[in-house]
Amino acid sequence: MTGPVLDETHDPARRSWIESANAPDGDFSIQNLPFGVFSENAGDRRVGVAIGDLILDLTALEAQGRIASGDAPIFDGGCLNPFMARPRGEWTKLRAKLARMLDAGASDRDLPLVAQSAVEMHLPVRIGGFTDFYASREHATNVGSMFRDPQNALLPNWLHIPIGYNGRASTVVVSGTPVTRPLGQLKAPDADAPCVGPSRKLDIEVELGALVGTPTQMGRPIGTAEAQDSIFGYVLLNDWSARDIQVWEYQPLGPFLSKAFATTISPWVVTSAALEPFRRDAPERERPLLPYLREATPNNLDIEITATLAPRGGAPVQILRTNAAGLYYSAAQQLAHHTLSGCRMEAGDLLGSGTISGPTRDSCGSLLELTWNGTEPISVDGGTRTFLEDADTVTLTGMCTGPYRIGFGACSGTILPAPELCEP
Amino acid sequence: MTGPVLDETHDPARRSWIESANAPDGDFSIQNLPFGVFSENAGDRRVGVAIGDLILDLTALEAQGRIASGDAPIFDGGCLNPFMARPRGEWTKLRAKLARMLDAGASDRDLPLVAQSAVEMHLPVRIGGFTDFYASREHATNVGSMFRDPQNALLPNWLHIPIGYNGRASTVVVSGTPVTRPLGQLKAPDADAPCVGPSRKLDIEVELGALVGTPTQMGRPIGTAEAQDSIFGYVLLNDWSARDIQVWEYQPLGPFLSKAFATTISPWVVTSAALEPFRRDAPERERPLLPYLREATPNNLDIEITATLAPRGGAPVQILRTNAAGLYYSAAQQLAHHTLSGCRMEAGDLLGSGTISGPTRDSCGSLLELTWNGTEPISVDGGTRTFLEDADTVTLTGMCTGPYRIGFGACSGTILPAPELCEP
Repeated sequence: MTGPVLDETHDPARRSWIESANAPDGDFSIQNLPFGVFSENAGDRRVGVAIGDLILDLTALEAQGRIASGDAPIFDGGCLNPFMARPRGEWTKLRAKLARMLDAGASDRDLPLVAQSAVEMHLPVRIGGFTDFYASREHATNVGSMFRDPQNALLPNWLHIPIGYNGRASTVVVSGTPVTRPLGQLKAPDADAPCVGPSRKLDIEVELGALVGTPTQMGRPIGTAEAQDSIFGYVLLNDWSARDIQVWEYQPLGPFLSKAFATTISPWVVTSAALEPFRRDAPERERPLLPYLREATPNNLDIEITATLAPRGGAPVQILRTNAAGLYYSAAQQLAHHTLSGCRMEAGDLLGSGTISGPTRDSCGSLLELTWNGTEPISVDGGTRTFLEDADTVTLTGMCTGPYRIGFGACSGTILPAPELCEP
Repeated sequence: MTGPVLDETHDPARRSWIESANAPDGDFSIQNLPFGVFSENAGDRRVGVAIGDLILDLTALEAQGRIASGDAPIFDGGCLNPFMARPRGEWTKLRAKLARMLDAGASDRDLPLVAQSAVEMHLPVRIGGFTDFYASREHATNVGSMFRDPQNALLPNWLHIPIGYNGRASTVVVSGTPVTRPLGQLKAPDADAPCVGPSRKLDIEVELGALVGTPTQMGRPIGTAEAQDSIFGYVLLNDWSARDIQVWEYQPLGPFLSKAFATTISPWVVTSAALEPFRRDAPERERPLLPYLREATPNNLDIEITATLAPRGGAPVQILRTNAAGLYYSAAQQLAHHTLSGCRMEAGDLLGSGTISGPTRDSCGSLLELTWNGTEPISVDGGTRTFLEDADTVTLTGMCTGPYRIGFGACSGTILPAPELCEP
């Protein structure tokens, strides 16, 4: 393919017979149709598509024989993986079919619909591998300035490689799951030895998460075009980070427990298809990229992401606004790079973009940068913050605006106090 | 518990009615009884226990109602995870029961047995998370000497933290699976920019892999005693590494693709129970450990591991012999540390010990160290090696000798040539 591919599902004039989907400020228009997993009354997990303030229940539709499911059901397993592993053509076909069912002109309106307010949302996918990248030049430069050398803030490999590392998949949780403040080894710069205690520099990292649909084979690299076609969709991602644990543990093998205690994602997977009109060219390259990383199509995404912070009992105040369009490396480049060594990718693998920071202070995607490592506190309702306090709630929201509007829903988490340390 | 716990399954005088289990130089004595997953004639995967040159088919035994399986079958899913997630008491009970069935005095010899030579072995567990540690002081010192500063080879955190990082679970493969030489970004020290090509410094890392049985809860750290009890068993592990890719990519977030292309494990999980008589005290501590890392019991394991290298058509020559007993951190300490921040552990999680290197050159667990970064080639059949050539086969074997003998079987892989690079 040669660039954004638009079909009737991208028609900005299209409206739904579900009136809440036509609200001008809503997240879930008929052009969006994101996939998620929900349950009612603590029942079985079902796959659904958000439309306005409702959910169209695909597990029920499939059981009724109203959407094709091949030889065996693919929506009855409580996660999106089986569907994501199907050929891309089936993603496109189902999207078109669902849009027709929900179109204002549809005559059959007897669909299995559930109110979003009546359900619990779950992780949309079973995540086999979580890889976190580092694609924002501004973020890498800010961190390098603070912790290494301001004169050589960007390391020599950064302009050539989409730097990334393996994260911890078992603690990726869905929006709304509380986040327990981590314990860890902490060492003051002037101390002779570390101690153990609750992190005092608990931070957020605002990221976009790409979800791999099409698996790859071990030992077979794929190019950026195939990689772009392999990505099923995107979620918002908050890669909670404990900066004081990180600075002591990360040499020489990289961040580990400082980022392994929790990563929150938004529950609705916004499909690559829905985002087609929001594809943008990558930033200009300071050094030419190696051929395997070059892109024939615009693969960056114009998604505006904001974060709010609400203290216990306080109101949420916006603390940053940034945009994924400026990232130096796209998810397609990250995925192509990921396979270069022959690493096998599976349906449901999650790739974090890396903290998204823009050129201004208030477009930075972490408190580390927003407060310049705690030296310049920011304002919140009723006080200030350097890093997170217990009972703080951080909520990310994402939005595309253009021919139509695409919202990501919320990606939220509240900090619980650290546990007591158990001795051996 | 207060140390090695021995019962009748550890009686060194016990013999089996399966004569091959009584061979003095065999791996799979009646005291061993390691668990694995096999298939015959490309059929379904079944769980079995190795005994001499046979396999006792637990999936069949369970279907026949001859071993208890609670409310639902636990050996019919083609992996060990459901059994590993059961309480430790059930591991003990089944081990005792199987030992009685196979005891020389058993009268009922009508058991579902299969020849090991007639089956294909598979990954014994579904691995959710693979974490690789760095527990050999000698290895960390050697690597620090070569790549950083010989005067300060060991980084300041190493004596306090069981350093580890998240590895890639999707490319953990069972012994016998070919390993494709990875492509990667390579940069010569004097080059202005990197190029892409096959790794020319393809290496092994000889490790012990611990498999977590008992899951932990997110946000709840466990101590070393609980951690020790949570480990179901051990495998040999070869963490194939591309040194030239590693040196260019690893700053600042750690090794990524240089170790994500393949990790080979041996197919038989030797249980913690079988290894009880081989528990040893940890080495003396240069700096006192933080209380959460202290151990009330000897948790190191006296396992001798050797590696052979066979070129295409050549004979295997032993290239190293080392022992896991000297590791500075035990798997119990690594697991306790892993949960300190609240990271959730699942049944089937794999913890690599880190490359096991001893105090002498020929007890080092990597070619990097054996050849001192390629400067001092070692001998193999018909030639020499610095790093691996295509068609080389590396095989690890592990052995405990004491009151009885416990073998791990082989952990083997053969190098295939790198693929062609695909352009976008």
